[in-house]
Amino acid sequence: MQKVDSSMMDFEERLEIDDFESEVMERIYSKPLLIKRVNTTSQIAIVGANVCPVESLDYEYYKAFAAYAGCNLGLATSAAALCAFIAPAAAGSGIPEVKAYLNGVDAYSILAPSTLFVKVNVIGIVSQYLRRFLSPVIYYLFIFGSIFGVAAGFVVGKEGPMVHTGSCIASLIGQGGSRKYHLTWRWLRYFKNDRDRRDLITCGAAAGVAAAFRAPVGGVLFALEEAASWWRSALLWRTFFTTAVVAIVLRGFIQLCSTGTCGLFGQGGLIMYDISAANVVYSTPDILAVILLGVIGGILGSLYNYLVDKVLRTYSIINDCPNTDVSGNYKSFQCPPGHYNDLASLFLNTNDDAIRNLLSTNTVKEFHISSLFIFFVAVYCLGIITYGIAIPSGLFIPVILAGSCYGRLVGRLFEPISKLDVGLFSLLGAASFLGGTMRMTVSLCVILLELTNDLLMLPLVMLVLLISKTMGDMFNKGVYDQIVKLKGLPYMEAHPEPYMKHLIARDVVTGPLITFSGVEKVGNILHSLKNTGHNGFPVIDEPPFSDAPELCGLVLRSKLLVLLKGKAFSKDRVLAGNEVLRKISELDFAKAGSGKGLKLEDLDIQEEEWDMYVDLHPIANTSPYTVVETMSLAKAAVLFRELGLRHMCVVPKSQGRPPIVGILTRHDFQPEHILGLYPHIRFQQ
Amino acid sequence: MQKVDSSMMDFEERLEIDDFESEVMERIYSKPLLIKRVNTTSQIAIVGANVCPVESLDYEYYKAFAAYAGCNLGLATSAAALCAFIAPAAAGSGIPEVKAYLNGVDAYSILAPSTLFVKVNVIGIVSQYLRRFLSPVIYYLFIFGSIFGVAAGFVVGKEGPMVHTGSCIASLIGQGGSRKYHLTWRWLRYFKNDRDRRDLITCGAAAGVAAAFRAPVGGVLFALEEAASWWRSALLWRTFFTTAVVAIVLRGFIQLCSTGTCGLFGQGGLIMYDISAANVVYSTPDILAVILLGVIGGILGSLYNYLVDKVLRTYSIINDCPNTDVSGNYKSFQCPPGHYNDLASLFLNTNDDAIRNLLSTNTVKEFHISSLFIFFVAVYCLGIITYGIAIPSGLFIPVILAGSCYGRLVGRLFEPISKLDVGLFSLLGAASFLGGTMRMTVSLCVILLELTNDLLMLPLVMLVLLISKTMGDMFNKGVYDQIVKLKGLPYMEAHPEPYMKHLIARDVVTGPLITFSGVEKVGNILHSLKNTGHNGFPVIDEPPFSDAPELCGLVLRSKLLVLLKGKAFSKDRVLAGNEVLRKISELDFAKAGSGKGLKLEDLDIQEEEWDMYVDLHPIANTSPYTVVETMSLAKAAVLFRELGLRHMCVVPKSQGRPPIVGILTRHDFQPEHILGLYPHIRFQQ
Repeated sequence: MQKVDSSMMDFEERLEIDDFESEVMERIYSKPLLIKRVNTTSQIAIVGANVCPVESLDYEYYKAFAAYAGCNLGLATSAAALCAFIAPAAAGSGIPEVKAYLNGVDAYSILAPSTLFVKVNVIGIVSQYLRRFLSPVIYYLFIFGSIFGVAAGFVVGKEGPMVHTGSCIASLIGQGGSRKYHLTWRWLRYFKNDRDRRDLITCGAAAGVAAAFRAPVGGVLFALEEAASWWRSALLWRTFFTTAVVAIVLRGFIQLCSTGTCGLFGQGGLIMYDISAANVVYSTPDILAVILLGVIGGILGSLYNYLVDKVLRTYSIINDCPNTDVSGNYKSFQCPPGHYNDLASLFLNTNDDAIRNLLSTNTVKEFHISSLFIFFVAVYCLGIITYGIAIPSGLFIPVILAGSCYGRLVGRLFEPISKLDVGLFSLLGAASFLGGTMRMTVSLCVILLELTNDLLMLPLVMLVLLISKTMGDMFNKGVYDQIVKLKGLPYMEAHPEPYMKHLIARDVVTGPLITFSGVEKVGNILHSLKNTGHNGFPVIDEPPFSDAPELCGLVLRSKLLVLLKGKAFSKDRVLAGNEVLRKISELDFAKAGSGKGLKLEDLDIQEEEWDMYVDLHPIANTSPYTVVETMSLAKAAVLFRELGLRHMCVVPKSQGRPPIVGILTRHDFQPEHILGLYPHIRFQQ
Repeated sequence: MQKVDSSMMDFEERLEIDDFESEVMERIYSKPLLIKRVNTTSQIAIVGANVCPVESLDYEYYKAFAAYAGCNLGLATSAAALCAFIAPAAAGSGIPEVKAYLNGVDAYSILAPSTLFVKVNVIGIVSQYLRRFLSPVIYYLFIFGSIFGVAAGFVVGKEGPMVHTGSCIASLIGQGGSRKYHLTWRWLRYFKNDRDRRDLITCGAAAGVAAAFRAPVGGVLFALEEAASWWRSALLWRTFFTTAVVAIVLRGFIQLCSTGTCGLFGQGGLIMYDISAANVVYSTPDILAVILLGVIGGILGSLYNYLVDKVLRTYSIINDCPNTDVSGNYKSFQCPPGHYNDLASLFLNTNDDAIRNLLSTNTVKEFHISSLFIFFVAVYCLGIITYGIAIPSGLFIPVILAGSCYGRLVGRLFEPISKLDVGLFSLLGAASFLGGTMRMTVSLCVILLELTNDLLMLPLVMLVLLISKTMGDMFNKGVYDQIVKLKGLPYMEAHPEPYMKHLIARDVVTGPLITFSGVEKVGNILHSLKNTGHNGFPVIDEPPFSDAPELCGLVLRSKLLVLLKGKAFSKDRVLAGNEVLRKISELDFAKAGSGKGLKLEDLDIQEEEWDMYVDLHPIANTSPYTVVETMSLAKAAVLFRELGLRHMCVVPKSQGRPPIVGILTRHDFQPEHILGLYPHIRFQQ
């Protein structure tokens, strides 16, 4: 270890060189390098304030390494345990789950409070109710699981979890208060329906991105391009409002913390990786280099998706925590002593600072090609392995890290013919990887712009995103779509599958249809609720209430439960009219907070009440959206998707038949369901 | 006029001051002021290369003024004549028309070639077909009408017309080629339907903004937020692709023209009004000032809308060209000689340079409060009067001009308590006016960002936009919505009106319903086509083709015409099957270019053919979207709007009646139509 010592001697001597030399040094070893940033909070802080002592003595090195690895292991285990035992939904990025929820998948656990508990400090949750949009940003700072994961030095980001956290908080706000604790203010009623709750959660996701990247406009665009399934101009305005508040609050905190008392938070200002000082000059050879970079970046990005998918499938088989694998990998990257500085400033650093180093301009020689290559391979592989282990982990940071390293490598290779700074190449590399994995365009473009504050790079960033997205789309889907599919969430695609054009709506109606009469026996309803999992039941008016059987409307399970709980029964088969609504408060019929609705077990119906009647007209939706049974399935799917329906009634084409053929839900449009019914389609494709 | 001379003497003396003083002067009279930019191409160039001689001698002044006014009058008359005689649709901004088209209003003249001719140089149009997305940007430089208007020194912008031009070119490309000239390439078939043509035109609008402001991301967002009525992620990707190409081409041109041989084009680089050098520091009093600025800006903006509306209504009554009014106004602003420099650098300058001056930072004292006030009042009033006269004119530039002047005024008033630079106040003022008139959020934010390259101002710009849009929304609608309404275009709002909840679909069905049999007599069809203006006709299958009358589908007028032209008739009432499609090329049924479709007069049907039969099944859309007659009108409107329909079939609820009650089109959802049918609703509101 003589070499290590001598290199450290060099380092110490360097501190005493004269002013002129130090100026030169400063220009060479410019700001972003570790030599100027000894005191950065990161995993290094666990070992000591400075990296030098770790290396300077042999026995200290191993001790320090043991401490370092031990701490990491502990943190990682805590994060994984939190996820595994309290909220499995909190594991992973969370963006696929938010995406699925906003598509209409109303699964309880996705945005449940326990998920939030793991992702966010629970203290002060109650005060959320008062602050509405303002507060998410405050609590982003307390992300439990993510903090553990990031602190453990994994190649994971905090961005995805922040999006999930924002959505969880928004969901909690949108629960409509708690009647138990008398927290039901008037304005909370606005969230008593699906659409406004969905809007609120979109705002939460936007706030997450806005806070994570300090990119308010990027947040809006991310929410619209990636998260939301339906765009409305009202939604645009609401997300803009949210992220504007986030931006102003963030700016306030940065101002407050500019004294340096808030740790890392006050650093960097609004622009996280400012490269605006770079001189942006480029000509034809540069553009050719950039196009090549985009093509390869797109391919590597889609390969990343492919591998993440494979790794996630493997994990779900072995169902094992691969913590030790990851920590253990660090050992195999012991670098030759002479190269210590550059590789350490990438590896033994926070992900944020590593990115800052890679994006730094006017630092051509600081990173050796071999170091960059080693780091790239390591980060690329680690990012893939780490994603999907049982901790809250984002994808943005690993992808940016790998991408910017790749970009710098390409920049170094093209150095002889290209005048473009390697730092800018690094930015373009990050763009190409993001485009190749996530397949977003405008939002990535704006996020990168807001991260780096270099508008002059815009044409090149757009070009790279175009190319890499196109390349990636040739091979597979975006990473979030892939994970949504892997998790088996019934996501409705924007476009119907081509084979749906050859089917009609009636073809996919399955199972026995359960209908109720306009005035139905209580026993029948209870029996149906108990024996089926259906959430919507058609109501049919029959004589004497109508001349011939006709479709009166659709009742939802949740409303039936409230009606039965209210016991607005009658002995005879008569219309009850609006008396029911006088008996049961309108608020009871409003959509309950997730997991809070009535359950069948909550009902207390006596046996003698089973033969009584209940009028379903007051709670029926009398204008359900219907399609004729012969409508092409593709058109039915468009209707279902565009209007964001949960149930669609299929009515007969010809007269003289029962007034309803069946009900379609989102499950009936899933390729698995249709291909299960018509396996020959799969082979025709 | 002694004073003028002496001031000029001062000026001349100033040129001979020593180096130190000249440096100080440079700092005070910094870059954007006229004194440093004598050689700017503008109306001043008509009079002479320098303003000084204009003022230095009395007789020259009047001569020059006469020449100036004469040239202006000539240019304005040319612009107005072009509009009035060749293409009335080319007058005005064009954005409302594009907006209406993208909402589904398929009016021929909106994007007709003659409109384009006026807005764009016609040379090279044919070569457009080859270059697809690339070429719009090239031709933006040749905007005829706009050039005349802007050159005449009106307070009008070129941005709106550029959006319109982009859309016109896109429309021309999307016509699907010309079969007459054998210009029907395979890929042009993609535009043989409404949706893809609409997408293409959205891309054109995005390209227009991208080229006008050199703001590619802003262009995408403008197209999505303001222009498009339906958002799809595919559309986002397509507009992004278009503006990326625009950005790269623009960047290439700027590079090419950096030698200075292309006139004004190469100046300014990608950032038109770079203020990134400004030191952005602000605290609580600044924010209070900014909030006040936003509130007043919003109110002034909505007042602007109100006045534009009033002025447009007045113009449509008097139908007169107010050119002389505008040119004449210049006279009344003869300023005292001592103040010449600052007011002249606003008035006697291109709009662009005036904005550059107003947004310039570190120039607190350069503009006197009184000059700013005079200029503000003048520009505010001129902008209102000028808009809507018969020349292609945009709204962006006048609003930015008035807004930045207003912002500078506020900045000067708050100087004692605010540390924020007046140039930044000026930017915020422009933002508040834009928010107050146009009511966009994200797109304005990004456009301003791309114009000024100052990301640190983002939180304040967002805040101001929020406030001013909210203030404006309290009083009236956005200016483009207002103009759409004023022009009587049947625009479908995103949300149904509240009173629609109390009506059902059947309530608004009017007029006698004209239906065809599955196999119909040629004479009947001709008679119906001649005597009604309907574009869609329901087809009803009757015995013996079905057991009972049932709705077979919907046929469009355009397809009926093609079918009749093809003369696939039979003597007897029998099904023809797909033979018809073998007889008539599929391409004939594709949507024709606007104004190119078959007309009733083109048919040549002999009298003996009138009694023959034609099978309508092959051309019927057998899956039309239907609603039950009792569906709430609000839900029907949502269905109609979200799916972008042209016709919606209303079917009966009960059996034993004819299978269709009526057809709803966009006109049936217009408030005028509904309130005409149910006048009492108006009073209940």
